[in-house]
Amino acid sequence: MNNGIESIFKSYLEPKEVYRGGKNIPASNKKIYKLSSNENPLGASPKAVIALKKAAEILNVYPDQTDIRLREALVADFNTQLVADQFICGNSGSEIIDMLLRAFIKEGDEVIYSNPCFLPYSVFSRWYGAVQVDVPLLESDYSLDVEGIIRSITPKTKIIFLTSPNNPTGTYVPKPVLEDFLNRIPKNIVVVFDEVYRHFADAKDYVSALPFVKEGHNIIAINSFSKTYGLAGQRIGYCYSTATIANYIRQIHKPFLLPITSIEAAIGALSDSLFIENTVKTVREGRKYLSEAFTSLGIKFWHTQGNFFIVEPPIPEFDFTDKLMAEGIMVRPVSQFGAPGKVRITIGTQEANEALVNALKKIKPHTF
Amino acid sequence: MNNGIESIFKSYLEPKEVYRGGKNIPASNKKIYKLSSNENPLGASPKAVIALKKAAEILNVYPDQTDIRLREALVADFNTQLVADQFICGNSGSEIIDMLLRAFIKEGDEVIYSNPCFLPYSVFSRWYGAVQVDVPLLESDYSLDVEGIIRSITPKTKIIFLTSPNNPTGTYVPKPVLEDFLNRIPKNIVVVFDEVYRHFADAKDYVSALPFVKEGHNIIAINSFSKTYGLAGQRIGYCYSTATIANYIRQIHKPFLLPITSIEAAIGALSDSLFIENTVKTVREGRKYLSEAFTSLGIKFWHTQGNFFIVEPPIPEFDFTDKLMAEGIMVRPVSQFGAPGKVRITIGTQEANEALVNALKKIKPHTF
Repeated sequence: MNNGIESIFKSYLEPKEVYRGGKNIPASNKKIYKLSSNENPLGASPKAVIALKKAAEILNVYPDQTDIRLREALVADFNTQLVADQFICGNSGSEIIDMLLRAFIKEGDEVIYSNPCFLPYSVFSRWYGAVQVDVPLLESDYSLDVEGIIRSITPKTKIIFLTSPNNPTGTYVPKPVLEDFLNRIPKNIVVVFDEVYRHFADAKDYVSALPFVKEGHNIIAINSFSKTYGLAGQRIGYCYSTATIANYIRQIHKPFLLPITSIEAAIGALSDSLFIENTVKTVREGRKYLSEAFTSLGIKFWHTQGNFFIVEPPIPEFDFTDKLMAEGIMVRPVSQFGAPGKVRITIGTQEANEALVNALKKIKPHTF
Repeated sequence: MNNGIESIFKSYLEPKEVYRGGKNIPASNKKIYKLSSNENPLGASPKAVIALKKAAEILNVYPDQTDIRLREALVADFNTQLVADQFICGNSGSEIIDMLLRAFIKEGDEVIYSNPCFLPYSVFSRWYGAVQVDVPLLESDYSLDVEGIIRSITPKTKIIFLTSPNNPTGTYVPKPVLEDFLNRIPKNIVVVFDEVYRHFADAKDYVSALPFVKEGHNIIAINSFSKTYGLAGQRIGYCYSTATIANYIRQIHKPFLLPITSIEAAIGALSDSLFIENTVKTVREGRKYLSEAFTSLGIKFWHTQGNFFIVEPPIPEFDFTDKLMAEGIMVRPVSQFGAPGKVRITIGTQEANEALVNALKKIKPHTF
């Protein structure tokens, strides 16, 4: 009966590689520290949770179809440096990436990204029939290969993905580098600047996309409520860009896209300055503590601006991951992200970080 | 600075018509009955709300990326007539429609739908560059123009939308008609069968897509948690189809697509048989009550299998809507759905239905 239907499947949608997120915690009585998915170690923003539960009282009613209240809360969060029409909200940062690709990519168009990076850039690009051009980060320090990207641009290049801080390396694109880059690329290319970890950055020359959006560059900043606000489970993200680009993307923004619980939780989270402050403090202190611990244990790591580290264990990454799991610590091998032999470790609470260090000490004599 | 970016916008994504949902209730002290958006008059499933609030305690953790627990709950809801891999879940029935179009439509492919119908069929089809072919429902009784659709099929036809019960007319596709239709169309066409109002149907020859999916026809059934389960605000939907089609669509199913609150609310709702029963009973009793009232008031209406009526007021539809609004009743003109001069009225609680009838009696002497 199904004869014929395969003929209309799009060939570039055939199974190839599927993004796999971090594992869920396996059932066990043992205390497990989940340091594998870059989740917020302090939980979710309490103000978000309160707002969400309140919204749960009116679930039978359609949400506001335009999410304007959330976008106005974002305008306030950005100190009115942008207007509401420059924001597009979606069910996660990933959905925003998907919308951008839909808006700009025709079959055969080219996208550029730099491995190791967030796998959906590649997976979602394939869904639109894009030709994928990987210009890897420089091997020495995982910095951006600016000259390599510039050389790879062709008339078919439509989107270039940059991530800062970058998942899974923790590296970033310093302001002068980004400035130079944006000035050198053709004006018919959109730069997708993924800054979902931006709150954790403290490098003096770290910069978000904001000043470049304000200057009118063709740049779209991807943001998420998953990390800083602790709302990974609720799937809320947004982007901001120039009015021209944002208004174009808005054409494919489905009405009633966001659940009312997401709208209310996000508005609550933006107002939760105490929680945001504590989260950022926890991550930065943990980053310092773990940098020192990795150094003293002799584990190769990269300096990070995110809420995670990438490390290179002296034994195969899956063995290392298994040994840590046996000690109650979940971490994530990131060969799938283009970083073979490397493991990504989320910064946790001080308790979790100490448990990690103790586990590393315990397995060290047998491994490295 | 933005010179050049317009050149890469897809022309078929230019603004044209945007789906507008029903209005939200305007701020007022007066009691307003919202009978404009086909929402559940009894509220949301209490079991869904409890489950959702429980999920709100772990919002910082990523959801299960595959939503397998929800799909297993759907298998149980379908009495194991289907397997978990035949279901695809999404953030609303609309998102599922969007996914299907992405999976099957290349630029220039044709889709067929029958106005008056749910506007997203047309709006979302345009997002993929589809050629839209409208074969209107027959004017006499809003039944499906089967011969017209068959005649309109070309080698480029990829998707045919059928809706039963149909929004906004309330009409349905009787079993023998659907059976005959499926047997006559080419095997390289997918029928998207939108059955989001199916729980409210009680016609003897009403049929869902289930038996035809089981027989292996190329049919995809769109379902929603917005109506029967009262979760319009949470945006949850699903489809079921043959394993071949479902596995293909699954390739573009983003990991972590559904918020954890949606997964848990949906599982809770499926188990809430008392709420479902009360909802269906309320709608069917209201349907009978309002049919009789419309008849005795001399208001032209169509027999409906949904939780709403389409009526043809004897005065311009916007005047009629305004007059009802002045009496505290919100209803919806549906010219945008391809039904000029008609108004859609959601069946409410008995209290709301009586308020509607009283309002109609009050405005009648001045209008019809």
